[in-house]
Amino acid sequence: MTATANNWADKIRAGDVRAISRAITAIENHEPEAEEVLRLLFPDTGQAYLIGVTGSPGTGKSTLVDRLASRYRKQQLPVGIVAVDPSSPFSGGAILGDRIRMQGHATDSGIFIRSMATRGFLGGLARTTADVALLLDAAGKRVILVETVGVGQDEVDIVKLADCTLVVLMPGSGDEVQAIKAGIMEIGDIFVLNKADREGTDRFEQQLTAMLALAPERDGWRPPVVRTVATEDKGTQQLAAAIEKFRGHFAAAAPRNAKNVERWKQRLLELLQARLMERVAGEGLGEAALVAVANEVAERKKDPYSAVSEILARVGLK
Amino acid sequence: MTATANNWADKIRAGDVRAISRAITAIENHEPEAEEVLRLLFPDTGQAYLIGVTGSPGTGKSTLVDRLASRYRKQQLPVGIVAVDPSSPFSGGAILGDRIRMQGHATDSGIFIRSMATRGFLGGLARTTADVALLLDAAGKRVILVETVGVGQDEVDIVKLADCTLVVLMPGSGDEVQAIKAGIMEIGDIFVLNKADREGTDRFEQQLTAMLALAPERDGWRPPVVRTVATEDKGTQQLAAAIEKFRGHFAAAAPRNAKNVERWKQRLLELLQARLMERVAGEGLGEAALVAVANEVAERKKDPYSAVSEILARVGLK
Repeated sequence: MTATANNWADKIRAGDVRAISRAITAIENHEPEAEEVLRLLFPDTGQAYLIGVTGSPGTGKSTLVDRLASRYRKQQLPVGIVAVDPSSPFSGGAILGDRIRMQGHATDSGIFIRSMATRGFLGGLARTTADVALLLDAAGKRVILVETVGVGQDEVDIVKLADCTLVVLMPGSGDEVQAIKAGIMEIGDIFVLNKADREGTDRFEQQLTAMLALAPERDGWRPPVVRTVATEDKGTQQLAAAIEKFRGHFAAAAPRNAKNVERWKQRLLELLQARLMERVAGEGLGEAALVAVANEVAERKKDPYSAVSEILARVGLK
Repeated sequence: MTATANNWADKIRAGDVRAISRAITAIENHEPEAEEVLRLLFPDTGQAYLIGVTGSPGTGKSTLVDRLASRYRKQQLPVGIVAVDPSSPFSGGAILGDRIRMQGHATDSGIFIRSMATRGFLGGLARTTADVALLLDAAGKRVILVETVGVGQDEVDIVKLADCTLVVLMPGSGDEVQAIKAGIMEIGDIFVLNKADREGTDRFEQQLTAMLALAPERDGWRPPVVRTVATEDKGTQQLAAAIEKFRGHFAAAAPRNAKNVERWKQRLLELLQARLMERVAGEGLGEAALVAVANEVAERKKDPYSAVSEILARVGLK
């Protein structure tokens, strides 16, 4: 087993696309081999720059990510793209979009694209994404673009993994700036005003800048607003420059390390939580057993606190 | 201790405001007494109808909740209001708003208002809210209004506790319907178009209705759109009627029970997770110890998977 894992890890380090794909599937399915491989690969990580890209559906995130990827490819940097879209009957279209994108880069072995949409029984999409990013890092990718719809906490957590986070917005009416979700505003290191050829761009940018001016500066960085028209590759250069500037700003700074440690702290908590729950599930508290207990509670035959104590006692914990 | 808990529980059952307030603080602080009291009170729960109200900042949720509360009070129904606002430097204003609201109902002992804004070290705002709702239920409240800003997963989880969920929107430009977050659209049982005296209301309603028509019907229910102008108490009656209709629709239906069991299943998982993490924290893995491990991982001296295994071994789990 370990020989196999070693072999697998070697192939991933060499950038073997099939080995990488298989490993991602293993991570998604929580196969124990995935962790063994990640353990082996961990010392090889820490080289990639992770760029998170978030924004509402329809803001043009995917096109923007593609443009950035092409730009980094021209600099000979191996690129990984992870597109996370928690399946929603209202959003949709992710898979089709993904296929179209794959075609554009199909002949380039220096780019790896993968989309992920499944949320497991116990959640953990952020954890899966983090593991996939580590994998691509070990596989030699130097830039990893993680793209996600900025909806729930899970997606915000995904973007928090990033070294640099782009929040993509688009101009509409003047009212819209107020409608932007608070949580999204706070995670942006750079704000991208895409579709900037639309009417209302000036006013939107004005309001956005005014809103950002109210926020406290973080470690000497005030998030800039960059205008783009991704479909026409306009502004991508300026955006890449802004990312470089941000990277330089935090390159040697202490805050960057602090952020890094904070990030690992969160990751450790998540891993711990996941491991504990897997252990409980292993002790016979599968979906069916849980539903049976939930039924008793719903009928007020048992209170939830006692029910949980009983489950913990079964696993050997009080 | 149990004598005290019994006494405390009796006071809560009698609707004693001080006892309820103290219990909520105990829940927020995760005091062990809180659980003891909740255990005692659990058989008395299941009577209240829980209405979740969510929407972006500025849509007028609080005013709407106040109007509904007044309406239920006129029917002599005891009402509880829980306003959840995870503190955000961008939103703000919650506490001031809360004080103003308290004044309007200050002389009415049949209404209990509490705002919660703190998110603990290990998260769990949804869990706290669920416990507070149980408490108010046992305290004799027959309608509980839980109001939250529809931002992160935590807030969506809070609303999922509800028997009936209102999503509050307001008209702006025609573009805005597309900008509504996917996760929010899916949880709405009733959509409230507040500030319906504004320009663009017709167009907004048209688009919203068209969007809702695309969604699958849930158990024979298609979410209606109700127009309100909460500041002028317009449409509140229609909204209360829509809630009644929804309640009737699911009163005896099997899907309602299924939803109930599913809800308790989620609650049990959350409680379990929280208990496991508390146990780990109790074994010396406090904040400081965790940061020390995170440091080692950030410096690639240790991989996160081995680090977590070591922590689990310390607690007596592999």
